Amino acid sequence: MTALAESATTILHRTSDLVTPALRDSVDMLDERLRLIAGYQLGWWECDGTPTAHTGGKGLRPTLALLSAQAGGGQPSDGIPGAVAVELVHNFSLLHDDVMDHDLERRHRPTGWAAFGEGQAILAGNAMCLLAIDVLRQADGPGLRALPCLTGAIHGLISGQSDDLAFENADSVDLAACLRMEAGKTAALLSCSAAIGAWLVGAPPAVVDGLAGFGFELGIAFQLVDDILGIIGDPAVTGKSASSDVRTGKRSAPVVAALRSGTDAGDALNELLTGGPPETDEEVERAAELITAAGGLRWTAREADHRLTRALGHLLPVSDQSALADLTTLAHYVVDRDR
Amino acid sequence: MTALAESATTILHRTSDLVTPALRDSVDMLDERLRLIAGYQLGWWECDGTPTAHTGGKGLRPTLALLSAQAGGGQPSDGIPGAVAVELVHNFSLLHDDVMDHDLERRHRPTGWAAFGEGQAILAGNAMCLLAIDVLRQADGPGLRALPCLTGAIHGLISGQSDDLAFENADSVDLAACLRMEAGKTAALLSCSAAIGAWLVGAPPAVVDGLAGFGFELGIAFQLVDDILGIIGDPAVTGKSASSDVRTGKRSAPVVAALRSGTDAGDALNELLTGGPPETDEEVERAAELITAAGGLRWTAREADHRLTRALGHLLPVSDQSALADLTTLAHYVVDRDR
Repeated sequence: MTALAESATTILHRTSDLVTPALRDSVDMLDERLRLIAGYQLGWWECDGTPTAHTGGKGLRPTLALLSAQAGGGQPSDGIPGAVAVELVHNFSLLHDDVMDHDLERRHRPTGWAAFGEGQAILAGNAMCLLAIDVLRQADGPGLRALPCLTGAIHGLISGQSDDLAFENADSVDLAACLRMEAGKTAALLSCSAAIGAWLVGAPPAVVDGLAGFGFELGIAFQLVDDILGIIGDPAVTGKSASSDVRTGKRSAPVVAALRSGTDAGDALNELLTGGPPETDEEVERAAELITAAGGLRWTAREADHRLTRALGHLLPVSDQSALADLTTLAHYVVDRDR
Repeated sequence: MTALAESATTILHRTSDLVTPALRDSVDMLDERLRLIAGYQLGWWECDGTPTAHTGGKGLRPTLALLSAQAGGGQPSDGIPGAVAVELVHNFSLLHDDVMDHDLERRHRPTGWAAFGEGQAILAGNAMCLLAIDVLRQADGPGLRALPCLTGAIHGLISGQSDDLAFENADSVDLAACLRMEAGKTAALLSCSAAIGAWLVGAPPAVVDGLAGFGFELGIAFQLVDDILGIIGDPAVTGKSASSDVRTGKRSAPVVAALRSGTDAGDALNELLTGGPPETDEEVERAAELITAAGGLRWTAREADHRLTRALGHLLPVSDQSALADLTTLAHYVVDRDR
C-alpha cells in the first residue's frame, strides 16, 4: 500500500467507527424485510442475514461529511447525522441504478435486485432515501438547515441517472452534456457530503460554499477516474467485468472524447459503435484500443487532474489545518486510485 | 349520477381549482424529461406533451387535505402545501407500483413505465416523492411541523407494497396480515391526507388525531371496496381487465376471506389457486364465482361498512360543521362507489 493510500485508509476507518452505530440505528427502524436488503446493500450481512466481514464501500461520503463539520468549526461528531444521510442516499442510488442498468454484480456480490427481486430492491432503496431525510429531520434545527443541501443532491442524482439512461439511446452526445450528466450522477452527492457537516454546525457561507465547490469538482474527478476504470480497470479490483462500460455501450467521458477527437481512431470507433454496443470479446477489446488510440483516456485523465486542482483551490476559506490536511489527502487518494 | 355522487363531485372539483396551480408550480421544478412523465402520470398531457382533457384521478387525497385544514380551524387554502404533497406522493407510489406489478394500463392509458421505460418511470417517481418533501419544507414552520406526518405515510406505503409483493409468493396469508398490508398500501396515505391540513394550521392534538383516525379507517374501507372491484368491477369503469386481481393471483381481502371461510367453495378455490394464478378465462371466471360463493365478497363489503362507521366516529372532535359535512359526504361516496 502506498503512503497516500495508508493515510487515506486511516482517515476512512476513523469515520466508520463514528458513523456505523448511528447508521445501524437508522436502518433498524425499517421492517424486517427491508432492513435485510438495506444491510445487505451496506455490506453488513449476506442475503440470508449471516454477518459478513465488511464488504461495503470505502465510506468516502460519510468521511467527507465529518471532515466538513470539522472544517466548519465544529467537532467531527457534529457531522454524524449528515454522514448517515449521505451514506443512505448513496446506497439508495446504487440499489436503484443497479435495477435500471440491469447490473448483476456489485462489490463481488449479486446486486440487491439480483438477490431480492426488482420490486423489493426498489422499495428498499426508497426506504433508505426516506431514512436519510428522517435522520436530518430528527436532528432538529441544524438538521433542518442542512435538509435543502441533501434534497438538492438527490434531485441531482435523479437527473444525472435520467440523462445517463437517455444517452444510451442517443445518436450523439457532446462532452458538455456528458460532464453535466456526470455532475448529476456523482458530483451532486459529493458536493453535498463535503458541505453538509458545515451546514450542520452553522459555518459561515464562504466556508460552506467553498466546501460544496470542493466536493463538486472532486466528484467530477472521481467519476472521470471511474470512467477510465470502466474501460481499462482490473476486474479483480473494480468488481465488474473487464471494459464493462464498453460492453454496455455507455457514453462515458473517454468514449465521448474519443468519438469527438477528429482522429482516425475516433472515426473507426464511431463506425464500430454504430448500431449498438460491441457484442464479441474481440469487438470489446478493439473498441477499448480505439478509445485509447483516439486519446479518450488521456483527455479524461487530464480533465480529472484539472478538476482535482480546482477542488483543492476551493478549500481556501477553510482554516482548520487538520481538516484541511485530511480533505487534501482524500482528494488525492480518490483521483490517484488504481491508475 | 346519484345525489351523493353529485355532492362529492362538487367538493372534489372545488379542490382541484385550488390545488392544481400549486401542483403545476411544483412539477415545473423538474427537468424537462422527468416533468413530462410526472405530468403524464397526473393526467395533464399525453406522452408527447399534447394537453389532454383531464384524465387524472379524482383528487380524493388533496381534497381531504384542504378539508383537514378547515376542520383544524383554518382556511381550506392553508392546506394547499399538504394537498400538493399527498397528491405527489400518491402518484409516486402509482408510478412505482405499476413498474413492480408489471401493470400495462391505468386509467385507460399505458402506465408510466409502459410509455417511458422502466428506468425513467422509477426516476420520475423518485422525483415526485422528493418534490412532496420540498413542498412542505418550503412552507417553513407549519410545513416542517407536518413533515413527519408525510414521511410516516411514505414509510407505510413502502411497507405495504413490500408485503403485497411478498404475499404473491406466500403459501398462506391470514386476514390480519392482509388487512395490515392494506393499511400500509392505502390507509397510511389517506390518514396523512386527512390530518396534514390540521398539522399545517396547528390544530389541537385531539382534532389531529381524530382526523388521522378517520383517514385511516376510511383508507381501509376504500381499499376493501377496491378489492371487491378487482374481482367483480366493470372494466369500463375500473380501467383494468375483468377480475384483474384474480388474474394476477393477488391475495386481496375477498380472496383471503374466501380461502379461510371453511366452506366447500373456499376449499375448491384453494385447490384451483394452488400452483399459481388461474390461466384461462374460464378458470378466472370459476375463481371469481368461488370467491363469491365462499362469502369472500360479502365479508369484505361488511368489513368496509364497519370501517366506514368507525371512520365517522373519529370525527367527533371536529367542530367546523361545513368541513364535517363534506368529510362525511366524501366518506360515504368512497365506500359506495360502483357497488
